[in-house]
Amino acid sequence: MNKNNPHTTHPLFLHINRFTDIREDDFEEILGAFQTLKVKKKEHLMLADTLCDKQFFVLNGCLNMYFIDANGSKQTLQFAIENWWITDYLAFGNEQKTEFFIQSVEPATILSIDFSSQEQLLERFPKLEKYFRKVLQIAYGASLMRVKYQFELSKEEIYLHFTRNFPDFEQRVPQYLIASYLGLTPEYVSEIRRKQLS
Amino acid sequence: MNKNNPHTTHPLFLHINRFTDIREDDFEEILGAFQTLKVKKKEHLMLADTLCDKQFFVLNGCLNMYFIDANGSKQTLQFAIENWWITDYLAFGNEQKTEFFIQSVEPATILSIDFSSQEQLLERFPKLEKYFRKVLQIAYGASLMRVKYQFELSKEEIYLHFTRNFPDFEQRVPQYLIASYLGLTPEYVSEIRRKQLS
Repeated sequence: MNKNNPHTTHPLFLHINRFTDIREDDFEEILGAFQTLKVKKKEHLMLADTLCDKQFFVLNGCLNMYFIDANGSKQTLQFAIENWWITDYLAFGNEQKTEFFIQSVEPATILSIDFSSQEQLLERFPKLEKYFRKVLQIAYGASLMRVKYQFELSKEEIYLHFTRNFPDFEQRVPQYLIASYLGLTPEYVSEIRRKQLS
Repeated sequence: MNKNNPHTTHPLFLHINRFTDIREDDFEEILGAFQTLKVKKKEHLMLADTLCDKQFFVLNGCLNMYFIDANGSKQTLQFAIENWWITDYLAFGNEQKTEFFIQSVEPATILSIDFSSQEQLLERFPKLEKYFRKVLQIAYGASLMRVKYQFELSKEEIYLHFTRNFPDFEQRVPQYLIASYLGLTPEYVSEIRRKQLS
């Protein structure tokens, strides 16, 4: 690889090459299909009741996908940090309206690609089909494990399992968002943390 | 298409062609990568603590993926009926041991493909990458919606939503398995059903 080419150290180039092989010469064109978004803390990238025609790749920062429940509270469904993809895949695949919001938890730099640009990109570079297949296979596999943990673990174990597996989140994400993601109350999470610290 | 070719009406041929285009001439070779399994009711296709190197496509019948919880009870994570793919995707992708069982709910005919045969098949027919990507995109998107329903709906609404969206299941799958999938007790499901019938 050419050490003078900054693309070879681009997070998306490295991430794609974990799963398939893309030449650095092609990466410039691939990157051209994306928009780079610099977002502030608490900025929205996707709003409920609007067309979901984009998916997002986190270069740095943290995103939160949530919905508003019947009580008007935000319920976190999913986080995304560096090297994670996020969107409402059901709405994205069908080019439909979403029921979800995507918001930054902290200042973030995001790559965004719309549905038709992705389709064109995949026509032009069919090797990227393997990349997205593998990324989705991991995401779906992990979601099955998440259901297992919800069934299997006590509330306290769910929290401890999450913070052990994703230690970054505890530092970066407000406690009430982690609580919401895990289906716990913020008060309960405070109680566990107090117990741990004592 | 050649009407005398039975492949054009094969469920997998039709399913692949919903998402990508595969020529019927190629389908015979594609089908050759799969094993056809005829399983009786309650037969296991996958056992916990064994290597997960296969994924399954249901031609007819119904499969149930579950784990055994700390109390020794079966907890259903996922069903698969006609045209659904099922495996432990995290273990399958990493060629690791699984924590899950896959068992038939009723007599079933299943296509099975192992990890290395699938990799070879995808090398030979890269168009199938798109097929699997789209299937996984839907599965992952649906799993996010499932989390949403678990957060958002009351126990009764969870049950009614499921049976309205998948009316087949109520007829085909024992009530205690539906209860387990939805995270409800069998007694609670009986109570809802009594209320509905009265």
